[in-house]
Formats: sequence, C-alpha cells, structure tokens
Amino acid sequence: MEQEKLLLRERILDAIKNRNASEIKEIFETIPNIDIAESLDGVDDAAVFLFIFRTVSTEYTGDFFTELTSDQQETIINAFTDKQLVELLNNSFADDIVDAIEEMPANVTSRILKACPADLRKDVNTLLNYKEYTAGSVMTTEYLGLKENLTVKDALQLIRQKGRNVETIYTIFVRDNQRNIKGIIDLDDLIFAKDDEILSEIMNRDFVTCNVNDDQEEVANIFKRYDLTALAVVNNENKIVGIITIDDVVDIIVEEANEDIALLNQISTMDEPYLKTPVFHIVLKCVPWILALMVLQIFSTWILSGFQTEIAKFAILSVFTPLLMDAGGNAGGQTTTMIVRSISLQEFSKGDFKRVMWKELRVAALVGMVVAIFTFGWLLFEMTIGIVDVGDAMQNLPIGNSEIAVKLMLAALVSCTLFVTMIVSRLVGGALPFFAKKIKIDPAVMCGPLTTTLVDIITLSAYFFLWIEVFSKALGI
Amino acid sequence: MEQEKLLLRERILDAIKNRNASEIKEIFETIPNIDIAESLDGVDDAAVFLFIFRTVSTEYTGDFFTELTSDQQETIINAFTDKQLVELLNNSFADDIVDAIEEMPANVTSRILKACPADLRKDVNTLLNYKEYTAGSVMTTEYLGLKENLTVKDALQLIRQKGRNVETIYTIFVRDNQRNIKGIIDLDDLIFAKDDEILSEIMNRDFVTCNVNDDQEEVANIFKRYDLTALAVVNNENKIVGIITIDDVVDIIVEEANEDIALLNQISTMDEPYLKTPVFHIVLKCVPWILALMVLQIFSTWILSGFQTEIAKFAILSVFTPLLMDAGGNAGGQTTTMIVRSISLQEFSKGDFKRVMWKELRVAALVGMVVAIFTFGWLLFEMTIGIVDVGDAMQNLPIGNSEIAVKLMLAALVSCTLFVTMIVSRLVGGALPFFAKKIKIDPAVMCGPLTTTLVDIITLSAYFFLWIEVFSKALGI
Repeated sequence: MEQEKLLLRERILDAIKNRNASEIKEIFETIPNIDIAESLDGVDDAAVFLFIFRTVSTEYTGDFFTELTSDQQETIINAFTDKQLVELLNNSFADDIVDAIEEMPANVTSRILKACPADLRKDVNTLLNYKEYTAGSVMTTEYLGLKENLTVKDALQLIRQKGRNVETIYTIFVRDNQRNIKGIIDLDDLIFAKDDEILSEIMNRDFVTCNVNDDQEEVANIFKRYDLTALAVVNNENKIVGIITIDDVVDIIVEEANEDIALLNQISTMDEPYLKTPVFHIVLKCVPWILALMVLQIFSTWILSGFQTEIAKFAILSVFTPLLMDAGGNAGGQTTTMIVRSISLQEFSKGDFKRVMWKELRVAALVGMVVAIFTFGWLLFEMTIGIVDVGDAMQNLPIGNSEIAVKLMLAALVSCTLFVTMIVSRLVGGALPFFAKKIKIDPAVMCGPLTTTLVDIITLSAYFFLWIEVFSKALGI
Repeated sequence: MEQEKLLLRERILDAIKNRNASEIKEIFETIPNIDIAESLDGVDDAAVFLFIFRTVSTEYTGDFFTELTSDQQETIINAFTDKQLVELLNNSFADDIVDAIEEMPANVTSRILKACPADLRKDVNTLLNYKEYTAGSVMTTEYLGLKENLTVKDALQLIRQKGRNVETIYTIFVRDNQRNIKGIIDLDDLIFAKDDEILSEIMNRDFVTCNVNDDQEEVANIFKRYDLTALAVVNNENKIVGIITIDDVVDIIVEEANEDIALLNQISTMDEPYLKTPVFHIVLKCVPWILALMVLQIFSTWILSGFQTEIAKFAILSVFTPLLMDAGGNAGGQTTTMIVRSISLQEFSKGDFKRVMWKELRVAALVGMVVAIFTFGWLLFEMTIGIVDVGDAMQNLPIGNSEIAVKLMLAALVSCTLFVTMIVSRLVGGALPFFAKKIKIDPAVMCGPLTTTLVDIITLSAYFFLWIEVFSKALGI
C-alpha cells in the first residue's frame, strides 16, 4: 500500500515535471481519484494542481478536488483565476462545496461564494444554515423532481437534459405543482416501462420521507430499515426541499458507530484517523475522562477509608476488593453497552423500559447465580494452592477456627457480595441509559462511569456489611 | 410506533377476514413491506399469507417474504404448492434465498432447492459454498455483464430485456469473452451517451474489484473509500464471478461496528435486537467474559495477597489500590479502543507500528504528567477534608512524623505510581492490538482484558515496590 502510493506519487510528479500531458490523462483515467489524491499527500505546490486541472477533463477529475486536504484546496483556490474557480464549482455539488467551505478561512469562503453561479450559491447558503448533524445539513438540494402527469418518454427526455446537474437520477421524485411528493420512481422502473405510460401510474406510493430537522442518526436508521438508496427530505409543511443519498449515509453510519464506541470506552469522539490526530488532541480526548473517573471514585475511596480498622485487623479482606469492584464494573458495562447500542439503533419504543427491566432482572438473577457459584469454587481453589495466603489471617482469629472453615467463610462472603453486585450492576447499567435519554443527554457519555460509581458504592457497602454483621461474628472476631 | 403497528395489524387481519382484496392491495401499494411484515409479527396462520400472496402482485410483495421471520417463512413454504413456491423463488434473488435457507430445517431447504429453476439453483449452491463473512458469501451472482464492443443503443436494449433478473442495473460491468472486466459504466452515463457510441469508449477504466475470499470488512472499507454503489467480485484468475451492492454493505458496516462495540466492552457479538434475544442467550453472551476476567485477576490477587503484612501494618495503602487499578484499566482501554478501531477501518499500513508506539510514548508521557500532578493535588484535598482518614495510619507510624508529611508522602506515592501506570497502560494498550492482528486473533477480543491484567500486575508491583523501597523508609517504618 505505502509502496504503491510512493510509486504513484513519483509517476505523477515526474509526468508533471516533464509536462507529459498524456501520461497524466492516462493516470486519471485508470486510477481512482482518492488513490491519486492520497499519493499527493503533503504536496502543496500550486503548479502541480494547476497542471492537473488544465490537462485532465473534468469528467475524470470529478471529485478529485474534494478528496484533497483542506490545505491543498486552499492552495488551489488561491492559485485559480476566477474563471477557473467558476469552472471547478460548476462541476461540484452543493453539499461537497459546503463541506469544503466549512474548513476554509473566511476570505477563501467569500471568494468561493462569489464565484458560485447564483442558483448554486443559493443552495450552498441554504445548506450552511441547517444545524450540524440534522438531515438538512447532510442533504443536497440538487435532486430530480418530475411532474406526475408526464409520460415515460418525456420523463426520460427531461432526465437526459437535466440529469447531469443532480446528485442522483436513480431515484426520481414525482411531485405536484405545490412541491408535495406524490410518489417515487426508480430509474430502472422507468427503463422497463412503456414509452406512453404516465408517471403517476408507475410510481411507487409506499415511500418514506424524513424532516429537515431530523437527527442524522434517525436518517441512517430509515435507510437501513427500508433499504433505500435515496430519501426525500421535507420541511414542516411536508414539501420536498432536498434529498439524501446512500453514500452520505454510509459516512453517517460510520461516524455514529465511532461515537458510540468512543463514548462507551470513555474517550471523546474520534473524528479523525489516529495517525492524523496530533498528540495533543489525543491527550485532550483521553485525560478529562481519566480525571473525571478518578474524581467519581471519591465515594468508594471514602467507604474504603472508613473500613481501615477492619482491614488492619483482617488484611485479607483487601485482597478481594479490586476483584469485586472490577466484576461489578464489567457486568454493568456489558448491560450499558447492550442498551446504549439498542437505543442508538432505535430498537425500543415507548413502554419498553419496563420490558427491559423485567428482562434484566431475570438475566441478572441467572448471571448472579452462575458467577456466585463459580467464584465460590474459584476462591477455594486460589486459597488452596496458595495464590491467596490465609496464613496471616489465621493469626488474627480467635483460637478454635479451623483453616478450612475460614476459607469456606471467605469464599462465601465474596460470593454473596458478588450476587448482590451482579443484580445491582445489571439493573443500574440497564436503567441509566433510559434516564439519560429522558433528560436528553447522550446515553453513551455518562452511563458507564455513573454505573461503575453506583455499583462500587453498593458493592463495598454490601461487602463490609456482610463481613461485620454476619461473617466476622461467625468467626468470633 | 407501537400504536401504528397495532392499527396496521388490525387493518390487515380485518381485510383478510372479510376477503377484501382491494384493501389488501391498497395496503401493499402504499406501505413499505418491512412495516407490514413487522406488524404481522407473531402471526403464523398460513391462510393469512396465502391470501396476501394470491391477492397482491409480486411487484408489490417484492421482498415481503424476506422481511418475515424464519418461522413465518417456514410456515409459508410448507403451505405453498410447488407451483406457488416456484413463482415465489422466481421473484427472489439468489442471495436472499441463501439467507433464508441458512435459517431453515433441512427438509425445507431441500424443498426450496428442488423448486428453484436450474440456473437459480446453481447460483444458490455457489453462494452456499463460500465461507461466512467473505465477499463470496455476501455477493450476488446476478449482475449485468455486457461485451465491450456493444453500442449504447444495443446495450440499453439488452438492459431492458435482461435487467429485471439482475440485482442492479445501475452499475454495468463491461467484460471480454473470457469474463475479464475491462471497465464499468454507470447507468446514468449510458443514459447521457449518444446511441451509436461504443461501450469501450465511454466505460470507466479506473475501477476497483475485490477477491471472493476477501473479508467482508475489507469489502466495506473499499465501498467507503471509493464511494461505490456496486463492486465486482473476481476469483483468483481475476474473472468476475459476482457483484456486491451497497445495500448489503450498509448491513456489513453495522454488523462490524456492533462486533467492535461488543468485544471492546467484553460481551460476545450481539447479532439480534436486545428485546428479541432470549434471556438465556444474553446470559451466555455475558457470563463467560465475567468469569474469564475474574480468572485473569489471579495475578493481581496473588500480588495483593503477598503484601498482606504491609497492608496489616499500614491499612491506608489498601484504600488506593482500586483507584490505581481502575485508572490503569481506563487508560489502557482508551488506547486499545483507538487502535482497534483504526485497525478495523484499515487506517494502518505496514511499518505504522513504530509510528504508533512513538506517538503513544509522547501521549503517555503527557497524560502521565497531567494525571500525576492532578492526583497529587486531589489526594491532598481528599485527605484534608477527611474523605481519606489518615488518623489510623498515624498511630502505626514512629513518633516524629507530622501529619502533613505523611499526607504529602502518600499523595506522592500514588502519583508516582500513576505516572508509571499511565506509561505502561498506553504502551501495552497500543501494542497488543498489533500483536493480536499478527497472530490472526480479532484484536477486539483479547486486548482489553489482557491490557488490564498486565497493567494491574505492573501497577501493583510498582506501588508496593515504591512503598517498601522508598516511602516506608522515608517514614521510618
């Protein structure tokens, strides 16, 4: 990969140095734009790009410009004459221009907007006004809308005329004079239809739409659910204002999954590839979480501090606290992950909270039983082979306690605590995401840390309560 | 949502009870298949489905069958006559049939295969033979391949004839007589071209392909990278054997992201919606991880057990162990998450391991410094306001130690340990995914637990080493 990129880079730069136009053309005709753009990573010599744009027809450069880094785009725009800029923009779609503009300094932006043809500028401005992460911000305003009373022949004729300026001709939106959508036609249906059929006869009426203000995650879920390649975006009066195509949705899906992954693992959202993210940014993404989690541990630290006398008397108790806290954190995290993901994928409807809790209660009871029984055996094993040394503990016990009784007692103490821990951690881990959603906080942000904190508090309290009230008495301390 | 589904269910079942064919037709013409299928969730009366398939034209039932549950599909197949089954299959694509077959008992499978027309059966059998999660297993064999010397007019003619039997006509694969792909044409280019142009003149030569044995994750990355809607799948001799379309890729992307999310949070892969997964399956997805993580803790338990005498002498040491272990686990987890995700998205090429390690070293040094300094202050604060009570600890110290000196010493001990922990956890968390990949284990499976285990061991060792060798001596114990 790396090797190929370097070879390609050399080939391109050589060809440009030698003014070898046919070689540059051949490269653009046979190699995807993104591979070419990536091989030129770091090149910011305007002359290189000017030669390319002058030599290669726009049919092949296509989205080459949008694949470059924003620094390179800036270099090119600054080097372009106004005429060249107009030509470049004429071959771009409004949503791509918006993406580029959002990364540019203000003076470049205003130069771009000035160079845009009037109707394109209107589209760009419209898109710039929608809130980030809404359907409006990802849609394009260049779609093909045809009147319902057209014949198939006329429709195909219109598509040949206008089709080059729209983002997709594969989904055609049939509308009335008031911009109300009446139906949708896939291009293949049009191709298979007879010339004199009327659009309203062959269009599909079982279509779905989304609102301009819908969250992009909702849009992605609509695409997945209905297996769409394009979706009409309507305003609050139900009039079509744009469309979203599946290539944009693929990006949204990856973005949203990355967000869930990052937040569930206590990092801030990762929006750039790892190697391209500066060291300082990575530190900023990670450190606040580490510090916040440490501050949240104030409660468990406080509880542990309060039981110092118990631990001083019977230090073996402290051997098991990390094990208990980790198990609780893991079980809670598992539940939170499942529920947060299901919320993201919009699997739940109203009233499902109770169903989830009832299910979690049954799961937790089973998990708790299995974990408690396993732990009982496992700890006996650890104490028998000497991983956990009960020798010191024996010395602090009243005479008359047999070593085997002490081992059984300790294993039982930890097992009973774990049973409580499993129940609490699953119920808390399952419930918190719903509350987070209710108070409109992203469930992935706070649920993990909060679950761990709550579970730690309850686990440690249960552990020392059981020790003081039941087990220490049984051992006669 | 829930409400709407119930109303629709009632409307459908009422219409069928009253043999109201026109109402059923209207429903299928105006409501998406998946919404109808979901509203009939749990209905397994064959008569209902027989009425639907008899009444509604296949144009509208389309993928209705594939949206039903496998129980319902089985019911329908068992109720269908052979003739009806043949008709249903004739309207399905090979890859959908394969998906259905994989869920059915053997007798139903053989009935389906028997009813398939010969060439469809051949396709289905081919697909069934590819390993799961490979390009071969997700591709469809029904694509449109045209010869390179055709004119545009002839090509459009052929598309009208053959197009209905292929999965997509939006991407047309141009090939020679030996099934070598020579280029790709998008349907819109064909529509915009002149009638007498030759395919080889207008086709794009800058296309990419994938191999039948490529992992589906790789396929998804190709789609994302090149913004494709269809991709040719070639065999080892570079001949085209099928295609993959973007709607299948959306499912793959969601599936792979879910896998990363599950494994990074120590659950087995979640492949079904939460509410549809039986209690017992959830237990099975979660419990093995909890138990495995507990078994892995054997090392830290052993270390803690070995320091019981130190803890008995100076119990306050045990107050900070969970804090240290958690911070290490969190920092390691953050790094692992970033690296695993970048590996999934194929951001790294050969030789990037060293770049990652060098970057992590710098990140870790910064993170370590910030966390250590913060913790020093934070612990002093906790000890000052009494969250951590140093009173007991003072009693076990030789006379002459001032309380403030002890507090400073403890804060310094924990801070120094944390600095070590941060460096180790980030380096281990960053390196392990690469090793996992090298030995061909899914990095998401083992890296989290293994990182935590290694970091726990080093953290606890550093903590007690620093205590015994430096700090306890300074305090004169």
